Amino acid sequence: MLTLIPIHGIGEVRPGDEIATLVADAAAAQDTPLQDRDCVVVTQKIVSKAEGRLVALDPDDPAARRALVEQESRRIVRRRGDLIISETHHGFVCANAGIDLSNVEAGQAALLPVDPDGSAHHVRNALRARYGVEVAVIVSDTFGRPWRLGLTDVAIGVAGIAAVVDLRGTADALGRELHVTEVAIADEIAGAAELVMGKSAGVPAAVVRGLDPEWFGPGAGRDLVRDPRDDLFR
Amino acid sequence: MLTLIPIHGIGEVRPGDEIATLVADAAAAQDTPLQDRDCVVVTQKIVSKAEGRLVALDPDDPAARRALVEQESRRIVRRRGDLIISETHHGFVCANAGIDLSNVEAGQAALLPVDPDGSAHHVRNALRARYGVEVAVIVSDTFGRPWRLGLTDVAIGVAGIAAVVDLRGTADALGRELHVTEVAIADEIAGAAELVMGKSAGVPAAVVRGLDPEWFGPGAGRDLVRDPRDDLFR
Repeated sequence: MLTLIPIHGIGEVRPGDEIATLVADAAAAQDTPLQDRDCVVVTQKIVSKAEGRLVALDPDDPAARRALVEQESRRIVRRRGDLIISETHHGFVCANAGIDLSNVEAGQAALLPVDPDGSAHHVRNALRARYGVEVAVIVSDTFGRPWRLGLTDVAIGVAGIAAVVDLRGTADALGRELHVTEVAIADEIAGAAELVMGKSAGVPAAVVRGLDPEWFGPGAGRDLVRDPRDDLFR
Repeated sequence: MLTLIPIHGIGEVRPGDEIATLVADAAAAQDTPLQDRDCVVVTQKIVSKAEGRLVALDPDDPAARRALVEQESRRIVRRRGDLIISETHHGFVCANAGIDLSNVEAGQAALLPVDPDGSAHHVRNALRARYGVEVAVIVSDTFGRPWRLGLTDVAIGVAGIAAVVDLRGTADALGRELHVTEVAIADEIAGAAELVMGKSAGVPAAVVRGLDPEWFGPGAGRDLVRDPRDDLFR
């Protein structure tokens, strides 16, 4: 059984804030303190704010926005009107280089963290050091998909848990070999967490409790980036 | 708070089996009977088996497999070696038209249900008629993504719950307008359910309990298919 717990009461996050403290204290305050083997999911938005990844941007200046998207990209993949699909410097293919104008102050934009895996490790290490809990951490962001409508949350930063679990070669229930079953569990965890966060409810973190203990260990958000050489659609 | 409960003990599913009965009885047998406002997630595999969507296929005959994929597709999107990315007759863009050789008997392949939304409605209606519970039903399948490694489960059939929740125009936590936040909750629910199913563990169903009551109502898996005219990557 898996339980997803939204973390309420974190409030507005500002540059220099320690995400680990905000999350752990808010979890304790609502009587769901963090436990070993929890996976803590935090949105890119609060991580970017805490890391000061905010820049001035006039929302009514499309040229300035375009320039910012290009600066945050290493390659433009597609353009249509105001929409730019690009590959970020991390290798993520997403809309507008992940730059977000919602839930930030007017005239500001939040850029993706420079190193989302590093961000996840920072939160995980701080939770261990300050609260003595051994948790996994996922930094989530909201991406579109080319052939499916609607956005889903995915993992851009991962620490302490596998991003992809390789079940290739594991016998299926009928004892035959499974051929390709690499499951992107970190993305599924990020998406699951969004179900309790809500976009407009101001809940920027959730705890996922009850994940398979075997999944905990090394992992990285960059493990989820398909090598451009294997990409049929770039 | 959201809870995900795997449904164990369903066993091998055969043509003509009633999925609603198998799931409801197995849920009751493990002391987690279905409740109103649960969302029941069942894999495409058991739905296809119950609906008799099985065909003979020699796994060592690539030409026969290719012909079957083409028959189940309305358009081939990309080919690389044995891999075919195609658009199914439903409009889903996925590998090998969703045809699966794992967890079916040797020499057989499972095709996608003809009408996955109809399949979901059938299960939902049978659960209401036989057990008096008002639940949502999602038929899940495992799809790849062009730019991200690892597979995730998505919703191909939906009944009784929105597939996409449109938060466009809902004020964000700072009171400003959100521009594009159509969240594919049915896909996130399907992915979350996979976290408790496990590919090789023979758990083909899960119950998701605690979803936002406002999400229950009309919805369809076809709502998740992007119109080819809006598709930058087909």
